[in-house]
Amino acid sequence: MTNKYVYLFEEIEEAEKYVGYDWENVRSLLGGKGANLAEMARIGIPVPPGFTVTTEACNAYLAAGEQFPKGMWEQELEAVKAVENKIGKKLGDPSNPLLVSCRSGAKFSMPGMMDTVLNIGMNDEVVKGMADLTGDGRFAYDSYRRLVQMFGSVVMGIEDELFEEVITKARLKAAVESDSDLTFEDWKAVNEEFKKIFLGETGFDFPQDPIGQIKLATEAVFKSWNGKRAIDYRNASKIPHDLGTGVNIMTMVFGNMGDTSATGVVMTRNATTGEENIEGDYLTNAQGEDVVAGIRLTKPIDKLKKEMPNAYAEFEEICHRLEQHYCDMQDVEFTIEKSKLWMLQTRDGKRTAQAAVRIAVKMVEEGLITKEQAVLRVAPEQVDFFLHPQFKVEAKNAANNSGDRFATGLNVSPGAAVGQVVFDADLANEWATKKSKDVIMVRPETKPDDVHGMLAARGILTSRGGRTSHAALVARQFGKPAVVGVAAIEIDLDKRQMNAAGLIIKEGDWVSIDGTTGEVFVGQLETLVPDIDDPFLIRLLDWADEARRLEVWANADYPSDAEQARKFGAQGIGLCRTEHMFFEPERLPHVQRLIMHQGDPDVVKESLDTLLPYQREDFAGLFRVMDGLPVIIRLIDPPLHEFLPAQLDLTREVDKLEQTDKNSRGLAEKKAQLDAVEKMHESNPMLGLRGVRLGIHLAALTRMQVRAIFEAACQVAKEGVDVHPEVMIPLTSHVNELKVQQTALEEEARKVMEDRGVIVNYKFGTMIEIPRAALTADQMAEYAQFFSYGTNDLTQTTFGISRDDAERGFLIEYMEDKILPENPFANIDEEGVGKLMEMGVKLGRQTRPGMEVGICGEHGGDPKSIFFCHKIGLNYVSCSPYRVPIARLAAAHAALEELKRQKIE
Amino acid sequence: MTNKYVYLFEEIEEAEKYVGYDWENVRSLLGGKGANLAEMARIGIPVPPGFTVTTEACNAYLAAGEQFPKGMWEQELEAVKAVENKIGKKLGDPSNPLLVSCRSGAKFSMPGMMDTVLNIGMNDEVVKGMADLTGDGRFAYDSYRRLVQMFGSVVMGIEDELFEEVITKARLKAAVESDSDLTFEDWKAVNEEFKKIFLGETGFDFPQDPIGQIKLATEAVFKSWNGKRAIDYRNASKIPHDLGTGVNIMTMVFGNMGDTSATGVVMTRNATTGEENIEGDYLTNAQGEDVVAGIRLTKPIDKLKKEMPNAYAEFEEICHRLEQHYCDMQDVEFTIEKSKLWMLQTRDGKRTAQAAVRIAVKMVEEGLITKEQAVLRVAPEQVDFFLHPQFKVEAKNAANNSGDRFATGLNVSPGAAVGQVVFDADLANEWATKKSKDVIMVRPETKPDDVHGMLAARGILTSRGGRTSHAALVARQFGKPAVVGVAAIEIDLDKRQMNAAGLIIKEGDWVSIDGTTGEVFVGQLETLVPDIDDPFLIRLLDWADEARRLEVWANADYPSDAEQARKFGAQGIGLCRTEHMFFEPERLPHVQRLIMHQGDPDVVKESLDTLLPYQREDFAGLFRVMDGLPVIIRLIDPPLHEFLPAQLDLTREVDKLEQTDKNSRGLAEKKAQLDAVEKMHESNPMLGLRGVRLGIHLAALTRMQVRAIFEAACQVAKEGVDVHPEVMIPLTSHVNELKVQQTALEEEARKVMEDRGVIVNYKFGTMIEIPRAALTADQMAEYAQFFSYGTNDLTQTTFGISRDDAERGFLIEYMEDKILPENPFANIDEEGVGKLMEMGVKLGRQTRPGMEVGICGEHGGDPKSIFFCHKIGLNYVSCSPYRVPIARLAAAHAALEELKRQKIE
Repeated sequence: MTNKYVYLFEEIEEAEKYVGYDWENVRSLLGGKGANLAEMARIGIPVPPGFTVTTEACNAYLAAGEQFPKGMWEQELEAVKAVENKIGKKLGDPSNPLLVSCRSGAKFSMPGMMDTVLNIGMNDEVVKGMADLTGDGRFAYDSYRRLVQMFGSVVMGIEDELFEEVITKARLKAAVESDSDLTFEDWKAVNEEFKKIFLGETGFDFPQDPIGQIKLATEAVFKSWNGKRAIDYRNASKIPHDLGTGVNIMTMVFGNMGDTSATGVVMTRNATTGEENIEGDYLTNAQGEDVVAGIRLTKPIDKLKKEMPNAYAEFEEICHRLEQHYCDMQDVEFTIEKSKLWMLQTRDGKRTAQAAVRIAVKMVEEGLITKEQAVLRVAPEQVDFFLHPQFKVEAKNAANNSGDRFATGLNVSPGAAVGQVVFDADLANEWATKKSKDVIMVRPETKPDDVHGMLAARGILTSRGGRTSHAALVARQFGKPAVVGVAAIEIDLDKRQMNAAGLIIKEGDWVSIDGTTGEVFVGQLETLVPDIDDPFLIRLLDWADEARRLEVWANADYPSDAEQARKFGAQGIGLCRTEHMFFEPERLPHVQRLIMHQGDPDVVKESLDTLLPYQREDFAGLFRVMDGLPVIIRLIDPPLHEFLPAQLDLTREVDKLEQTDKNSRGLAEKKAQLDAVEKMHESNPMLGLRGVRLGIHLAALTRMQVRAIFEAACQVAKEGVDVHPEVMIPLTSHVNELKVQQTALEEEARKVMEDRGVIVNYKFGTMIEIPRAALTADQMAEYAQFFSYGTNDLTQTTFGISRDDAERGFLIEYMEDKILPENPFANIDEEGVGKLMEMGVKLGRQTRPGMEVGICGEHGGDPKSIFFCHKIGLNYVSCSPYRVPIARLAAAHAALEELKRQKIE
Repeated sequence: MTNKYVYLFEEIEEAEKYVGYDWENVRSLLGGKGANLAEMARIGIPVPPGFTVTTEACNAYLAAGEQFPKGMWEQELEAVKAVENKIGKKLGDPSNPLLVSCRSGAKFSMPGMMDTVLNIGMNDEVVKGMADLTGDGRFAYDSYRRLVQMFGSVVMGIEDELFEEVITKARLKAAVESDSDLTFEDWKAVNEEFKKIFLGETGFDFPQDPIGQIKLATEAVFKSWNGKRAIDYRNASKIPHDLGTGVNIMTMVFGNMGDTSATGVVMTRNATTGEENIEGDYLTNAQGEDVVAGIRLTKPIDKLKKEMPNAYAEFEEICHRLEQHYCDMQDVEFTIEKSKLWMLQTRDGKRTAQAAVRIAVKMVEEGLITKEQAVLRVAPEQVDFFLHPQFKVEAKNAANNSGDRFATGLNVSPGAAVGQVVFDADLANEWATKKSKDVIMVRPETKPDDVHGMLAARGILTSRGGRTSHAALVARQFGKPAVVGVAAIEIDLDKRQMNAAGLIIKEGDWVSIDGTTGEVFVGQLETLVPDIDDPFLIRLLDWADEARRLEVWANADYPSDAEQARKFGAQGIGLCRTEHMFFEPERLPHVQRLIMHQGDPDVVKESLDTLLPYQREDFAGLFRVMDGLPVIIRLIDPPLHEFLPAQLDLTREVDKLEQTDKNSRGLAEKKAQLDAVEKMHESNPMLGLRGVRLGIHLAALTRMQVRAIFEAACQVAKEGVDVHPEVMIPLTSHVNELKVQQTALEEEARKVMEDRGVIVNYKFGTMIEIPRAALTADQMAEYAQFFSYGTNDLTQTTFGISRDDAERGFLIEYMEDKILPENPFANIDEEGVGKLMEMGVKLGRQTRPGMEVGICGEHGGDPKSIFFCHKIGLNYVSCSPYRVPIARLAAAHAALEELKRQKIE
């Protein structure tokens, strides 16, 4: 017995039986297109008769060294017969010819892998018959030449250019502008030329036998599965290479048979807004490709209602039926041949984020899907759309076409921003606040004292820096669109201008930056401001919250961020970076003084006494906003030299002053600074005196911070705030670091609470951001009451990669060359970093069952990484406020996908 | 029934029975001193009668809140009676008084924990009786005052100063210089003063009841176990705190009873050379403490042969018997009281490295111990003694006392060196080679182009740099003594001098540096040059080789190192660092040109073509030396900027030229260099573009290196050399790096072999020096045919610590504060780094069973780390040539200790 390789559309139930009644398997066997055609036929929707050659046949063909598997071709011939019988036409019969199309169709849509061949069955005899039958010789020869052209280029690999040249010449000769103005004779002549080209390029005549045409087309589709284009596409889309493609042979129907014929492409709902109306375009007297090609001006679908009311009513009913059947918005193709409606394709329709959300919510209301399904219908990243302005698609397309895009950089903070270029923070602040101008702040890179300008600007653009550069971090923190590391621009701060490959942009000129894509445009592109308070989104996120197990916290340093985060649904603060506050102008001098005189206890005390009330106020504000929720405050982390000028700059300044003004007081001061900076110099500061090492080294500073935290906590507790501080020690690698530091700090905390007579519900814990901490998490948990994964640092040390350096250099090469499948700083590297994380969770909870473990690295806002965090049993992810809604949805997806898997198992 | 807490010396067998006939347990129960006294008694050696109160009694006493356990004191009283009966004297009986000593004795010797109390039993009556009995009042009162003094200071905690002041005054009053010149009356008066002090300080009279004295002394010894001094000592020596101490009460015998009495301390062999003769000192008519105190000039032990031939003969026989019994050289104390020999102590004697080796080997010959025992008798670090010159102990002591030690730094390369200070490499080379001077090269830090000077120098001294600084690496590589990071010296290169806390040392002045300890002396200290060809050492190492499972390979870049390594017993080259060769003067310009014009394939090709023959010769030389053994060659590892001048220096030079010589060609060149350096600048080069990342980025360079390796291999194979190249790819973190790089390089290798028509037995493999590589070692092993742990880098990334920075800073603090129990760069951190290593071995061999795994980080030469490497099943350790013999012995220890453990289990 031979296998069954060919299924008529009406044989769908046999196919289902063969694969065990699983729709996914039907799609695997017949391909998406074939499965849906058969399904439509089954539920009584008019589909032109046809059949599908299975993906198994394709795989067998390829495995056997391009030999049809036994019996397949015979089955295909029988299927052709069945189609002929059904439609009452016959292949190659000039008096009653059957024409068919041949289309590939894999399980997953692979546009561009292989085109369609239409009008199979045409030959020198049939064309004449068709001309007679239709009374339209022009139509007949146009159809024939299309077959020769498609067959030649798609099946035989002849360059399409050769054919197109012939048509161009024909147009010139006929002195017409459009193909549609060519006559019957013109097309006939064109076709003769085409056949000559075919002979010349392939060495044999265009095949006149329709069965031979089908055979060659089937083989061509099979072979195309292993073509370079297809392999590349599958690699890029992560589609497995062993699926194979189906071949769909279907009776041709013609929308170009006069004014009672038409063809169109339609979505069953509005794919942009999600509104509940059919939306699409059609053409009267035209073929499907004409609609897509955009040569003729299409008509909106509701015009069809007037033009062909009966056909429209049937079509509308079919659209509704398809939605009810597939429980999703459909993207359909139809043709009306002489008033008779045929459906040629249906599939789930692509849609914007906004539409996705509305459709999902509405379909729950309509009883088509469950809440859980609705949640899964919207990709987490799509939520981003509601959080940031976007450029209008048309505006961006136009700008790209006109060459207004002058550079591309790293897309470090999403959203679109339009403004006038400003080259320093003070001016940015002035223009924005005093003159109400929209500004884009442009700098080689930003520093902590640029923050006021960054906050005032609409967006940030830098020529240097990577994904964790200061500019990127601050921008994400405050939801400012930002593009950094734009190597193609050269900024001349003296001339107040920048040069992008010859294009000079001066201060005050308008630019538009797209932080979502990293594109930078000259001029003002039109933007669209979506609404986070979209009622559909709110309902969807509520459902997501019901489904998820992971909590979503936010990284926030200031009360205003925390407020934003809470509004977005954050359930706690997972990371407050205390040192950011040290950069504020009224504090920095005290911090610098402290650093310069570390050895002098009096100065240290004085500086800390000055800083304490500031920090206390920072924390009190945060606690008030987060009333009732946990707030994790991380003790000082960065190396001290970050608070002082750079060594190179200082050295040059000193050199210069030595030359010009040897006796100035400035020189002595600079020299003292330089001396301090030199002493603190480290060749690899990322691996140097920072985090807990600094906390132990400058114990008085961390003690001050803890005092400030607990003084603030006691103060707001007295105001009636429900306060839950959690003190976090960064960069630990050995349990003894915690033992020494945490013990001393807990003592300080208790002292404050005793003094104030207030008992605060607090925790002490540690970041896990060094491999050794994860490897020895059982020991760490003897002291730490909670863990928080700092996956930025953990990825750096686990890979031995300095992120800022690498993202300007070899890491980009690595991703281009596919040495790294993805950027480990964007998605958690599950095999390496993830393995450590999993160990850490397990070991930590071994010592301290049920221990709170979260993540506060940037991965906490990345949906793929959130899946992983869910899987390894974290309690929460913490991300920047603007990622919170995304994270809520991603966490729900993780939980729902897990449920699905459990059900299957 | 009460427990037995007190054992007479003759009751040793009962004690043995109680603990299950295990000598270690006997030592635990009775303490080391008590056990050995009892053991001597058992084998018929004359020991003054006495008994031991057990450590169990001590523990029970402490556990009960300082209460003797039930029955203990009664047993002690009985034991006193038994001693009285045995010796025929009676405690407190003036006519026939028994005096006893009371000494603590824990399982492990804890000097300084508690002193001895002698002459217990003296009181106001007994002293008179003693004076009468001996006819020596001076002796009697001296003995009494010693009891009061010791009892007062040791038991009652009175400051000894108070007693010593009285003696000093007595000497002044009597106008004599030495205590021995004080008379009977003097001592009597002193003793009266002592008793007054005792009363004043304690509030009660000196106890007259000898039994009371014993009770108080016993309690004092028990309590001393938990004294601060003892606890600190145990913490430092890692002795458990729950062992407790025994108390030894023993009949006093007197070496100061005239000319037929004597006392001495002796080693049964020469503890310096190991030669087979008794060695030690004695004094006639003296007490033991006098010998140790060094107040009187002692006599060498062989004088005793003449002085008291009978006693000496007996003593000699006893020494021999003790060695035969304990199978080790003994450190013994004896006293001769009126011609009667008494042994007061025996224990295994401390010895120099040289002696340890000779004694171990000789004792095998003598049939006392097995070869395996001999191997275990010598600590691996002791072998270092044979490899480097050492300062004579006396010379160092003298220099320390006279203040000639002017600084201390990091002891990065062992050995003693004496030479004249030179401040640059060229001069060092010139003085050494042309003028045959011994020089010490002194620099702030060294660079690759200083190497010729370093090689010419006797030793290296730098004011900056850490354990992996260039100076340290090169010094260890070539076995040059070196001290680096001596922060206390300020080098003024212009004035050609250095300043060490005010001491000015000029070029040409003599200094002596001790690379074993890090000490730096002014002047010429006398050295001792041991001999690696010591025949005893050779035999011992041969036995070690028989015992060990781990192979020992060496890290060597040049044929001369390899030769040295092979001579020391290396079984392969585990690491040849190819880039070192790039620094040689005729090559560096080509390397720099290559770097400056990376983008220009012509320049790249030209430079590589020039470098290829050099590298080929390097490798050919190495292969010839290592004929028959594997040679692992690591492809280029360091970041490229290391081959160019430093950014800061270049910037300043450019700034200066801009001022002074704006149009010079030099400026343009410097600017180009600066530009290149700036482009290559990385904020954390340790985590940057180096290792395989560089190898992929500059694929042509690694291809050239592989070509050179295989051209060399083919060439020497044709000469008849048995060549085994192994190509090692550094710093991999993802399997795809290996996939890309190794695949390309293996192809190049095969191409060379095909061209030359030679088949070479080769391997390709990778370093495991990044946590991710260890975590994904199963994947790595799909390509790598061998692993080599680079534990320097692995420790840096696992801890997130930049070694060079940290060892100048917080790491030192961490070790001082005991936050880190030891320096993880010196000993493998088993809990963290070691865990990763263990995972790596397991995962790697899971994919590739029996895979070759070694270590080439510096830990490969550290005995403790070698134990660990043995434990986790590595195939070899690779270390610098001068560590090879040490590693051979350490590997043997590891194997033998494992055997021991297995036997116990």
